[in-house]
Amino acid sequence: MKYVRRPIIGVIGSAQCNEEVYEIAREVGREVARLGCILVCGGLTGVMEAASCGAKEAGGITIGILPGDSKTAANPYIDIHIVTNMGFARNAIIALTADVLIAVAGGYGTISEAAFGLKLGKAVFALHSDIKVKGIIKCDNPTDAVIRALKALDKLP
Amino acid sequence: MKYVRRPIIGVIGSAQCNEEVYEIAREVGREVARLGCILVCGGLTGVMEAASCGAKEAGGITIGILPGDSKTAANPYIDIHIVTNMGFARNAIIALTADVLIAVAGGYGTISEAAFGLKLGKAVFALHSDIKVKGIIKCDNPTDAVIRALKALDKLP
Amino acid sequence: MKYVRRPIIGVIGSAQCNEEVYEIAREVGREVARLGCILVCGGLTGVMEAASCGAKEAGGITIGILPGDSKTAANPYIDIHIVTNMGFARNAIIALTADVLIAVAGGYGTISEAAFGLKLGKAVFALHSDIKVKGIIKCDNPTDAVIRALKALDKLP
Amino acid sequence: MKYVRRPIIGVIGSAQCNEEVYEIAREVGREVARLGCILVCGGLTGVMEAASCGAKEAGGITIGILPGDSKTAANPYIDIHIVTNMGFARNAIIALTADVLIAVAGGYGTISEAAFGLKLGKAVFALHSDIKVKGIIKCDNPTDAVIRALKALDKLP
Repeated sequence: MKYVRRPIIGVIGSAQCNEEVYEIAREVGREVARLGCILVCGGLTGVMEAASCGAKEAGGITIGILPGDSKTAANPYIDIHIVTNMGFARNAIIALTADVLIAVAGGYGTISEAAFGLKLGKAVFALHSDIKVKGIIKCDNPTDAVIRALKALDKLP
Repeated sequence: MKYVRRPIIGVIGSAQCNEEVYEIAREVGREVARLGCILVCGGLTGVMEAASCGAKEAGGITIGILPGDSKTAANPYIDIHIVTNMGFARNAIIALTADVLIAVAGGYGTISEAAFGLKLGKAVFALHSDIKVKGIIKCDNPTDAVIRALKALDKLP
Repeated sequence: MKYVRRPIIGVIGSAQCNEEVYEIAREVGREVARLGCILVCGGLTGVMEAASCGAKEAGGITIGILPGDSKTAANPYIDIHIVTNMGFARNAIIALTADVLIAVAGGYGTISEAAFGLKLGKAVFALHSDIKVKGIIKCDNPTDAVIRALKALDKLP
Repeated sequence: MKYVRRPIIGVIGSAQCNEEVYEIAREVGREVARLGCILVCGGLTGVMEAASCGAKEAGGITIGILPGDSKTAANPYIDIHIVTNMGFARNAIIALTADVLIAVAGGYGTISEAAFGLKLGKAVFALHSDIKVKGIIKCDNPTDAVIRALKALDKLP
């Protein structure tokens, strides 16, 4: 009996976003699931909800690393609710848990997650984002981002 | 489309244990999975490994809340690796994430998890354990513990 | 130029307590300061406030490891406010930061801190407490507890 | 009896730095102490050590929020050792604890701290830094940075 671990892709972005960004994040979630990966995110609204929604639409598994002390704040597309009660310090857990990160747009929280990911030597991709952290790789569209994320995983230690 | 959340049962205990305790924890894991619940544990060896092994034998899903900074320390029966790099402070996340807790034997780490669970108002059951924390409910065998855990969940807010 | 580190004594106990327990904790705080040690605690009310008050009365230094996201919840006798926003997971930081722990009465949170301290191999003393964790050393009065705590520190690695 | 809380200034930067950056951070530490503020930092080498050294030279108080599980990794100029064993997730505690932040040069960890500080609505200043996070205020020299930091504190809620 052998259990092969499926790659975990972190999708990071703000809890508030416009419709355009929501649709991008949703398509990222769909691609993550289509390619057989698990989605991890912060579990809340906005980009986190969009990516979770997309992943469920494509039959995937979603993990929400929640900042508060209960599961009720999670968006309805989370399968696995991890309750940290650590506020934004839980961003470190997202970066540690994801094998690779994809930022969609994003604010200060997203920057912290991207910085943690890069510090850990993980690949960090960005879509529709004006985040300026050295080492983030800009991508053209959700499919491009997820495929490059999977390619980066081959290089993971 | 509606996603019903499956109950998460936390199994807590030491990273070292004898064969008798291992078999009890493994049977707890099997029962958790048979009754359709998700298992959460600390993801390491001993009682954590035994419960994870049992859950996988019965076709369940296992979450490991890992104390270190990588997935490699996890036992081979973990499906979902949550990497916290927080050492034993991750025990708080186990107590927050589990809807109910079952201790098998156990040492100081187990006591901290049971205390956190009780502080949160969650039910904490114990098997083969000499932990003396007011409010822990001793059980006779794995089936008894898991059934009582499920009954306790009906009372969860 | 050489900076010798002063011992840090953790005083742990509940955020609510009766007057008798308050006075015991206050006297512990006074003794901690009189003997030249720094006090660390959870920074809130009850036993934490009493110990902080006593330490300031005797001219000591007090550290509060706060569970919330601001300094305003701290009792008025805290000198150094550490804001964790981690809830009771901050109990791990108290146990890690203290060189030795003294519990006064106490509930579930106190048990978690004592368990963490013992797991770290630190001495844990108790006053007026019915906590039943193997390894906790019961003391007769505040002076007895603080003197034994200081003696234990000689054995610290 | 009334205890007025002294402002806490966070100095953030890398654990490795060249001599020029070290001297800038040291002068920041001196100014922090001269103006009666407490210094908080990550407690390690490089910019953290330099700022701590400067603060002690000017008679100040230094807090180190340490990432590891012991006090031995701290630089020798730390007065108050807070042991978190949380790795870089402790960066959140630095941002929460500091009333205002000053970055000197800096890498990914520094970016995460600046992002957390800005998310909290705190002022973040930067010296000799190419960090590009919207909202960071570049300063000309250590005195300029610390004076502006103190001015920003008047606006704190």
